[in-house]
Amino acid sequence: MLADLRDTAPLVQCITNVVVSNFTANVLLALGASPAMVDIPGEARQFAPVASGLLVNLGTPTGSQRDAMLEASEAAADAGTPWVLDPVAVGFLSIRTGTAKLLVTRRPTIIRGNASEIIALAGAGEGGRGVDSLDEPAAALEAARLLASLHGSVVAVSGAVDAIVAPGDAVIRVANGTPLLTRVTGGGCALGAVMAAFAALTPDALLAATAATGIYTQAAESAAATAAGPGTFAPLFLDALAAITPDDVVRGLNLSAGA
Amino acid sequence: MLADLRDTAPLVQCITNVVVSNFTANVLLALGASPAMVDIPGEARQFAPVASGLLVNLGTPTGSQRDAMLEASEAAADAGTPWVLDPVAVGFLSIRTGTAKLLVTRRPTIIRGNASEIIALAGAGEGGRGVDSLDEPAAALEAARLLASLHGSVVAVSGAVDAIVAPGDAVIRVANGTPLLTRVTGGGCALGAVMAAFAALTPDALLAATAATGIYTQAAESAAATAAGPGTFAPLFLDALAAITPDDVVRGLNLSAGA
Amino acid sequence: MLADLRDTAPLVQCITNVVVSNFTANVLLALGASPAMVDIPGEARQFAPVASGLLVNLGTPTGSQRDAMLEASEAAADAGTPWVLDPVAVGFLSIRTGTAKLLVTRRPTIIRGNASEIIALAGAGEGGRGVDSLDEPAAALEAARLLASLHGSVVAVSGAVDAIVAPGDAVIRVANGTPLLTRVTGGGCALGAVMAAFAALTPDALLAATAATGIYTQAAESAAATAAGPGTFAPLFLDALAAITPDDVVRGLNLSAGA
Repeated sequence: MLADLRDTAPLVQCITNVVVSNFTANVLLALGASPAMVDIPGEARQFAPVASGLLVNLGTPTGSQRDAMLEASEAAADAGTPWVLDPVAVGFLSIRTGTAKLLVTRRPTIIRGNASEIIALAGAGEGGRGVDSLDEPAAALEAARLLASLHGSVVAVSGAVDAIVAPGDAVIRVANGTPLLTRVTGGGCALGAVMAAFAALTPDALLAATAATGIYTQAAESAAATAAGPGTFAPLFLDALAAITPDDVVRGLNLSAGA
Repeated sequence: MLADLRDTAPLVQCITNVVVSNFTANVLLALGASPAMVDIPGEARQFAPVASGLLVNLGTPTGSQRDAMLEASEAAADAGTPWVLDPVAVGFLSIRTGTAKLLVTRRPTIIRGNASEIIALAGAGEGGRGVDSLDEPAAALEAARLLASLHGSVVAVSGAVDAIVAPGDAVIRVANGTPLLTRVTGGGCALGAVMAAFAALTPDALLAATAATGIYTQAAESAAATAAGPGTFAPLFLDALAAITPDDVVRGLNLSAGA
Repeated sequence: MLADLRDTAPLVQCITNVVVSNFTANVLLALGASPAMVDIPGEARQFAPVASGLLVNLGTPTGSQRDAMLEASEAAADAGTPWVLDPVAVGFLSIRTGTAKLLVTRRPTIIRGNASEIIALAGAGEGGRGVDSLDEPAAALEAARLLASLHGSVVAVSGAVDAIVAPGDAVIRVANGTPLLTRVTGGGCALGAVMAAFAALTPDALLAATAATGIYTQAAESAAATAAGPGTFAPLFLDALAAITPDDVVRGLNLSAGA
């Protein structure tokens, strides 16, 4: 799928937060996809049908962006554009939580979040403090299964081990990665954009989310091996995303499947 | 002109997209100019007359930014502040295209874009997909000439070879650069800000656009020589912008003039 | 205090400008604090009472952000959340200046700015051109004392030597740092966020501002020792913030106290 992505350069529309928009675009470019940060009302609706994939990330949801999210997700659903919902910091914060609960009813292709966010989106918890997760990935599995069966979405729960849950209860776990991804802002958010890029390549959303996670976390491992800290890690990670080969991915993947 | 820029540190007002605002400010600082991201209505109008140059970039044009662009370009024109229009992704996207078509009638000092954007702004095409260009620089030359003669602007078309067209049909081509500039978000957008900085130093807009392009692309070449990928390229490029000397520029410039 | 910060990871709500939001979040993460960029009306008010500290930075103050600043600062004051005001580029620009003059009456825990900004906020000058300071730190000391006594705030004036003024006229000067901090956008803005993180650890705001300044500027010195320019400086600075130890800080601190 990585060769396929580089051949086709899927066009990923990103409606994402201002903190990570630059990093997200650079992650997509490094990997070989094509970012399009089209996030204003009017244009968001117009673009979603021609995009290869769409990311909706709730990190800094201004009124203008919330309008753009609602119209883009609707247009994506109508046009069959796969889309990813990242419910950043939902739970305690009421405005984004309301928006996320509306968006999720539009059956995102993939939902991506940390344990606290997935639990809160499923209505089972208060969420974390800001973007940090206070809940264990294991505790989030039940919430992920609920969301997957209610909305037909694949649900990816990030953590030391990432768990990816499909409707019907298949679970894939990816144990690659590095704690440095949590020391760079956007480490999780940009993965959502990569999932949208892979979802453009296959109708199998479980495969798309797993491929995205495996490639992303292994590039991160490779960068962490030479980084001296979180500052030098970020550019080395982008280099690794550009350099990683399908063979590297197969060789290093630490994956297990279960129920 | 580079020595002049470092002596005078022109103050460049940037109304630009959220994805590249950080990189753009760092490019200006590295080179020796002084960025001022004054982009809210009310202040944008107030600042343009005291700025040395103005950049208007349509990458993520919220309603608030569109108002700021309209008032700043008007105030710049009235005060004689040189300004650069970068019509990012115009063509298919209707809101920014309408804004760009209005802005261009205010006779920007320089218009900077890729081939698809220049063709779309001239009314001759549908534009690219997002920020990518699908048209050849050669095909954009006619559109650039049309814009230059209609609006009295210098028109810079980016590509593997950059073409800079003046009213009256002089064309300068700069063949410096590196594909890595297209693997970092803002590689083109930040060049628009650098053009605004150089336009502050001379009334000859063709000279300003050419100097900006030559210095920018040669710093990029120098960074590419040691970068291991797009991630490490970006900080090395900023270092190169800070380190490049007028002698370096003259020595490395790959320039041709024609009609 | 550095060990304390890393143990407790204070949650710093940042309402800051789009240009530096990524760098600011990465500075907090590198140091060991936890950033939360909650800056929309409705959520800003809701979050301030649960945040450990709050930063209000006026760099790109859209209407939405100005509303968020006003409600968050009120909620922080009511809840006892310490907060930092960074009056970026106030003076000439009328909208942010009006907002800053209203915000300062709510008695920020710490006010942080360059000499021009502090003078303008005190009503004694026209401010600088954009974010640059044209006034000497010494000339700003009187303005800082006025603000400190009027509003009960600690006032930190950045410059080659940083001066930190407490109500009652104690002054601490920190002579650490590097000019490279002025060649990276957000070099000052991110320090405001670090001050908010330290203000969460102690009710002594003079101590908090001094600790933040000392640690921040020494990490910068350490990064400058190996950086080849402003581009490579930024990631090395983040690495240094993650690596610096309490012993390093005590050993390198160039501090003097006076009146």
